[in-house]
Amino acid sequence: MMMNIDVLSIFPEMFEGVLGHSILKKASDKGAVQYNIVNFREFANDKHQTVDDYPYGGGAGMVLKPQPIFDAVTYLTEQEKSTPPRVILMCPQGERYTQKKAEQLAQEEHLIFICGHYEGYDERIREHIITDEISIGDYVLTGGELGAMVVIDSVVRLLPGVLGSEQSHLQDSFSTGLLEHPHYTRPADFRGMKVPEVLVSGNHKLIEDWRMKESMRRTLNRRPDLLENANLTDQQKKWLDKLINVNE
Amino acid sequence: MMMNIDVLSIFPEMFEGVLGHSILKKASDKGAVQYNIVNFREFANDKHQTVDDYPYGGGAGMVLKPQPIFDAVTYLTEQEKSTPPRVILMCPQGERYTQKKAEQLAQEEHLIFICGHYEGYDERIREHIITDEISIGDYVLTGGELGAMVVIDSVVRLLPGVLGSEQSHLQDSFSTGLLEHPHYTRPADFRGMKVPEVLVSGNHKLIEDWRMKESMRRTLNRRPDLLENANLTDQQKKWLDKLINVNE
Repeated sequence: MMMNIDVLSIFPEMFEGVLGHSILKKASDKGAVQYNIVNFREFANDKHQTVDDYPYGGGAGMVLKPQPIFDAVTYLTEQEKSTPPRVILMCPQGERYTQKKAEQLAQEEHLIFICGHYEGYDERIREHIITDEISIGDYVLTGGELGAMVVIDSVVRLLPGVLGSEQSHLQDSFSTGLLEHPHYTRPADFRGMKVPEVLVSGNHKLIEDWRMKESMRRTLNRRPDLLENANLTDQQKKWLDKLINVNE
Repeated sequence: MMMNIDVLSIFPEMFEGVLGHSILKKASDKGAVQYNIVNFREFANDKHQTVDDYPYGGGAGMVLKPQPIFDAVTYLTEQEKSTPPRVILMCPQGERYTQKKAEQLAQEEHLIFICGHYEGYDERIREHIITDEISIGDYVLTGGELGAMVVIDSVVRLLPGVLGSEQSHLQDSFSTGLLEHPHYTRPADFRGMKVPEVLVSGNHKLIEDWRMKESMRRTLNRRPDLLENANLTDQQKKWLDKLINVNE
């Protein structure tokens, strides 16, 4: 099954570099996903192809008109045969994006992203055609495009067959519920900075224990909130208690 | 003063679309910022230009070697005349990125971003040359490149002279501490969906009150955590109490 991803943006060229390289390109080459970047200006029905207008009630800033976006989404969905698409608005007011949401979206057949670009959205877009409002974090961006790329990247890498085994393991902090342990590679002594001895000991049990303890230590120091939802073994709970006692 | 932004990535082409359009391009055209995307593979000192290697202690995944990154950062900083740069590692274990951090970074003269790409980082990079570790959110991406673009976008738009007044107002949810009120633009009746009457009343006091109440309602419903740190007037606190009573 191929996932279809449509993106509505008046800056379609912004997507070329990100969708055209590395994993996102490989996923499309393999047929796991098809990207379709749509300039919704083409759907504006006035002769100047206007996509925004002044806000009712006054004030600074422009607001995206409902017509071009309604008509673009209608066009993209009228061929829909089976399940309706998720229509996702990228905006600071949306739900905070998480790995869990990425896993949910990776189950879908059709995602449509709507990206404003420093404009606001007419509220009728939000009320009548949007299924999900997503914010990638508590910071202000010049548009929804980067947020859409972030969501696309995190979803597409989860699609079956997209990641090779050498890519799938690392950086999966949020899948295990703990932050990752430190990594080291050659040389063992780099300009006087040495690799911890346990890692070159050849003792697999000691290495596994070291990694788990370091993973827990890092999580405790940097993101203690993650420990509340982590699924710890009895051994891990003992280590955690020791770490907490040392910290206090 | 011009900000210098260096990015270390083995996928420099990923940045072209994002840095070459819209606000980020205008900021560079205006001389507010200069981007320099560096393929750190060019700094690898072996004949195969290797940037990663197997992890000590075994396991899946590759780890970025210290040498190419140490030497690239040395090269980029040896001409440094005044304040040392911020050397920023994009990684899931980093501090959670916020608008406050964006405002801090916008005060700097030189930012260097280090982007891994599904590999882990040798811990000696983290310990010896990094000043900041940043995570843009609790989700897994295929590399640090999109995170770096997100941070760059949020920082560059804050540089003096970059945003015009028509771009600066909207979407600034996190500057006021509250989520934005709904926006509407013409037509007042779009396919039977109408704009709230108050917005076409011409009564500025009523419009301001409506907007503030809607902003508080939305924040209360979607992100009550933001209200704890919001700086509310007495009038706003009264409205908030009323909203909470209605919700209960």
